[in-house]
Amino acid sequence: MLKVHQHTFNLTAAQCNAQRELAPAMLTQHIIECATEHADILGCGYRRLQADGMAWVLSRLAFEMKRYPGIFEKFTISTWIEDFNRHFSQRNFDIVSAETGETLGYARTIWVAIDLNTRRPANLEAISAIAETVTDRPCPIERPARLRPVAEPTDTRNYQFRLSDIDFNRHVNSARYVELMLNTLTLDDFDSAFLSRFDIEYKLESYFGQEATVSSAISTGRATMDSDIAVEGRHVCLSRSVMTPRAVPYSKI
Amino acid sequence: MLKVHQHTFNLTAAQCNAQRELAPAMLTQHIIECATEHADILGCGYRRLQADGMAWVLSRLAFEMKRYPGIFEKFTISTWIEDFNRHFSQRNFDIVSAETGETLGYARTIWVAIDLNTRRPANLEAISAIAETVTDRPCPIERPARLRPVAEPTDTRNYQFRLSDIDFNRHVNSARYVELMLNTLTLDDFDSAFLSRFDIEYKLESYFGQEATVSSAISTGRATMDSDIAVEGRHVCLSRSVMTPRAVPYSKI
Repeated sequence: MLKVHQHTFNLTAAQCNAQRELAPAMLTQHIIECATEHADILGCGYRRLQADGMAWVLSRLAFEMKRYPGIFEKFTISTWIEDFNRHFSQRNFDIVSAETGETLGYARTIWVAIDLNTRRPANLEAISAIAETVTDRPCPIERPARLRPVAEPTDTRNYQFRLSDIDFNRHVNSARYVELMLNTLTLDDFDSAFLSRFDIEYKLESYFGQEATVSSAISTGRATMDSDIAVEGRHVCLSRSVMTPRAVPYSKI
Repeated sequence: MLKVHQHTFNLTAAQCNAQRELAPAMLTQHIIECATEHADILGCGYRRLQADGMAWVLSRLAFEMKRYPGIFEKFTISTWIEDFNRHFSQRNFDIVSAETGETLGYARTIWVAIDLNTRRPANLEAISAIAETVTDRPCPIERPARLRPVAEPTDTRNYQFRLSDIDFNRHVNSARYVELMLNTLTLDDFDSAFLSRFDIEYKLESYFGQEATVSSAISTGRATMDSDIAVEGRHVCLSRSVMTPRAVPYSKI
């Protein structure tokens, strides 16, 4: 079985963010896509789990980037399984420039399966064969952090989930939460610095029409931001962003 | 010179909307990407225009779809130039399922060039060689409609443009306006019907931090919706959506 799956992307102009780079939310989506593709190839994807009344749910994600792919740059995301048991699967990633060969960053994810009827954690024993694909390929970044809700927000705003926020599972899209939290920051923040580390913990699903509150605490100097999104008084996800100054600030064209 | 440019896409699960289809805003983005790629190949892309202090601006877009690509479906967008003069370029598209060979829909776009300093329309004479690539390949849909602002809105809401709304040109992303306007509709609307025709006219650029008002008038029976987005009292874009009932309503999983 193919222990490492690779997907090469081409960052088109239309996909770039304001700094002409891959946006962190798009990186998140690509990471989820690569995981999904590899799981499909290994015969343990959504369709296989659905046959057993289960579905994969992304529980935690962390990524650390030295640099984001730039406009017109080709880059390859590789993914592999570091650990697997009947409770969860731990899947890692690296992101490499296909142009320069430079490793741009790494990501770690933790996936659980839920029972589609009870929405409770399911037992992954039925697909334990994928334990054979576990590999010790290195992923030299810290594991996804345990996060807490924001105690004293410096910024709070409301947002109602609408049509374009909903994914094929009828939940709010995992990458959309990343956008909503990073949208607390400004263009100036991303012109002068870049998101060097991002941790997110997905706790609950949320749905079309729900009213969410996005709360964030930005540190003095704007080097870190803790965020959470709450719906009906319950936290649906938590995140922590670390911003590192750019060697050269992005210059507007 | 290559008169027809083609790009084949694969609709991954992560990219699907709630009906497990290509979302209209993503179709818009793909159309823009294909246009950009072809212009680059023809030597009249953003980089060529930028050298002359100009940039392409999408002025009007219309598409008509019989069906949207579904989850895991491969589809090909072909693009070609129908008309070109020193004021504008008219570029058409068809969208074909790479699995069934079925033509899923057509699109028409009108592009103008602006002078990057004055933000006024520029003269395209410098790239008049691309007139040689004009072809009469058929595009059997009506030209993009002339639209008017909404006279009597049935739905109005405010939205502030944030980080994730901004594109590589530091303007609000063209596809994002499509999302914002269609977000006036509901999941139920898209479960029972699909967007069979969409016209949009881009009138002004808008920017990070600006407060927008999205106004829509939905017809009785919800078969059509006229929308506009206004910033500081000026209309930045206008659209018209036509919804056609699905043969079989989308059934939630």
